[in-house]
Amino acid sequence: MNNLALGIDIGGTNTAFGLVNRSGEILKQGVLSTRGHATVFDFVAALKSALSPLIESIGIENLQGIGIGAPNGNIYTGEIVHAANLDWKGRIPLAQIMQDMLGLKTHVTNDANAATIGEMKYGAAKGMKDFILLTLGTGLGSGFVANGQLIYGHDGFAGELGHVRAVPEGRLCGCGRKGCLERYASANGIVSSAQEMMLHSSVASCLREMPNLTAASITQAARAGDQLALELFEFTGAILGTCLADAVAITSPEAIILFGGLSQAGALIFEPTQRHMEASMLHIYKGKVKLLPSSLPDADAAILGASALVW
Amino acid sequence: MNNLALGIDIGGTNTAFGLVNRSGEILKQGVLSTRGHATVFDFVAALKSALSPLIESIGIENLQGIGIGAPNGNIYTGEIVHAANLDWKGRIPLAQIMQDMLGLKTHVTNDANAATIGEMKYGAAKGMKDFILLTLGTGLGSGFVANGQLIYGHDGFAGELGHVRAVPEGRLCGCGRKGCLERYASANGIVSSAQEMMLHSSVASCLREMPNLTAASITQAARAGDQLALELFEFTGAILGTCLADAVAITSPEAIILFGGLSQAGALIFEPTQRHMEASMLHIYKGKVKLLPSSLPDADAAILGASALVW
Repeated sequence: MNNLALGIDIGGTNTAFGLVNRSGEILKQGVLSTRGHATVFDFVAALKSALSPLIESIGIENLQGIGIGAPNGNIYTGEIVHAANLDWKGRIPLAQIMQDMLGLKTHVTNDANAATIGEMKYGAAKGMKDFILLTLGTGLGSGFVANGQLIYGHDGFAGELGHVRAVPEGRLCGCGRKGCLERYASANGIVSSAQEMMLHSSVASCLREMPNLTAASITQAARAGDQLALELFEFTGAILGTCLADAVAITSPEAIILFGGLSQAGALIFEPTQRHMEASMLHIYKGKVKLLPSSLPDADAAILGASALVW
Repeated sequence: MNNLALGIDIGGTNTAFGLVNRSGEILKQGVLSTRGHATVFDFVAALKSALSPLIESIGIENLQGIGIGAPNGNIYTGEIVHAANLDWKGRIPLAQIMQDMLGLKTHVTNDANAATIGEMKYGAAKGMKDFILLTLGTGLGSGFVANGQLIYGHDGFAGELGHVRAVPEGRLCGCGRKGCLERYASANGIVSSAQEMMLHSSVASCLREMPNLTAASITQAARAGDQLALELFEFTGAILGTCLADAVAITSPEAIILFGGLSQAGALIFEPTQRHMEASMLHIYKGKVKLLPSSLPDADAAILGASALVW
């Protein structure tokens, strides 16, 4: 019947997977560690063991294929290319390895693209033909949809809004350049901002007492009214909103969807981002672009989006 | 037979039109002044008179329709919306007026989009599925193509790269905002840069003697080795190249095509733009993006692109 697909979301720490039907229901799911496998072949062997009970429970003949979202995954080549947060370096021909070891047609794309497809088919962007999705996690990933299609670009590497220049001569980024948006508007970015702000401000703040500063603890502090934490969201929203105004001038989306860790701060991040985006936008776009939260649980969007690569 | 279309390019000064076949050959063409018509109805009446001999020569039954490229033209509504460089203010339902007065189905898009379609169907972007076109004229217009389709955005106003923030708190733009790219990387932009640079530099330059500074005269001076003129191209290329690196991070195009007045400076503008773009780009894009001149004569690209709206 070929009515099922496996969706796999490979993250730096964990790999989540699910058996998904054409309606976007996750029938069964599981998780394994991404780390601790000496080679990608060891990882795929462990993944195969984890997937076997799922596949056997429905019969391999009912599986149409496998879709994978992974850091730096490339839809055209099926490779993972120089992923900074994975143990396997260089170019990893993941789709080919999966096909060889599991005997199922496999598609690979990057994790933000997979989440974007999930949101388009089953989430907050259902029915939209033009939108942007941002994943505000450890870094900042993005997927752009225009004319109802994901923009992959000529080489499969489109949608790197995390690496536009947000601050001229700003913070050093993992990519080797300076001032990239993801060094400010991400879970790690807001922590860097907190460290800088605490150095340069004398405002009393509970953040100063925290041994392990995270986006979640900054969110908690802001909700409790901590002035410095509130300033951090204002600062982050200003930088993100200004960059979004420029992205809007390129693709004129109906909505921008925020997803991932930092987006869970809710109004704390949405309100200043939208306000600064509106203030920075060209007049023809003002008041037209919705800033929305994802309507899918974090792990689900990537699994659902990855599975949708199969159809 | 319906094998012919009328392509019309409405500019701030002149309106060019041509009778185009499906192969992209302009069989006949003409021009009339855009200015000097009290209302848009007077303009369309004058246009109708100018078009009549063309239409009669082939018979209206052989015309499939009319395509128009115009400043702030909108493909979805057929309107021209608040065009700064035209005499008719507000929202002009141009497609409807043309259909009523000429009896031919009419499509309207903005001038940069029309040029982009022309380049894709008949010019330097033939066969490309992902590219960007910039018109470096009085202002800076742009068209983005992804997955073989022009990105119109949800409202038809996508592709305003001229209004991304190139210089924080930079020059005041006609749109009311500051530091927009078109205030630097356009024929008018380089003239503003020249005026600023002459104020702040004591370098001798033939530009100081010119009563009417234009992009063409700056180009001439640079070709003659004028130091200040050469610095102007370096300065302009640095700003344009940096912004293009950010645009590449969004749509990852195979090529960027430069078109219009300032692009006629050739290597003077292409070389520094490409160099700064390469220096600013994320590593995965380096060495992959071609910077190309248009392969169509200026007026032709817009006429051809406008006519292609009909098919």
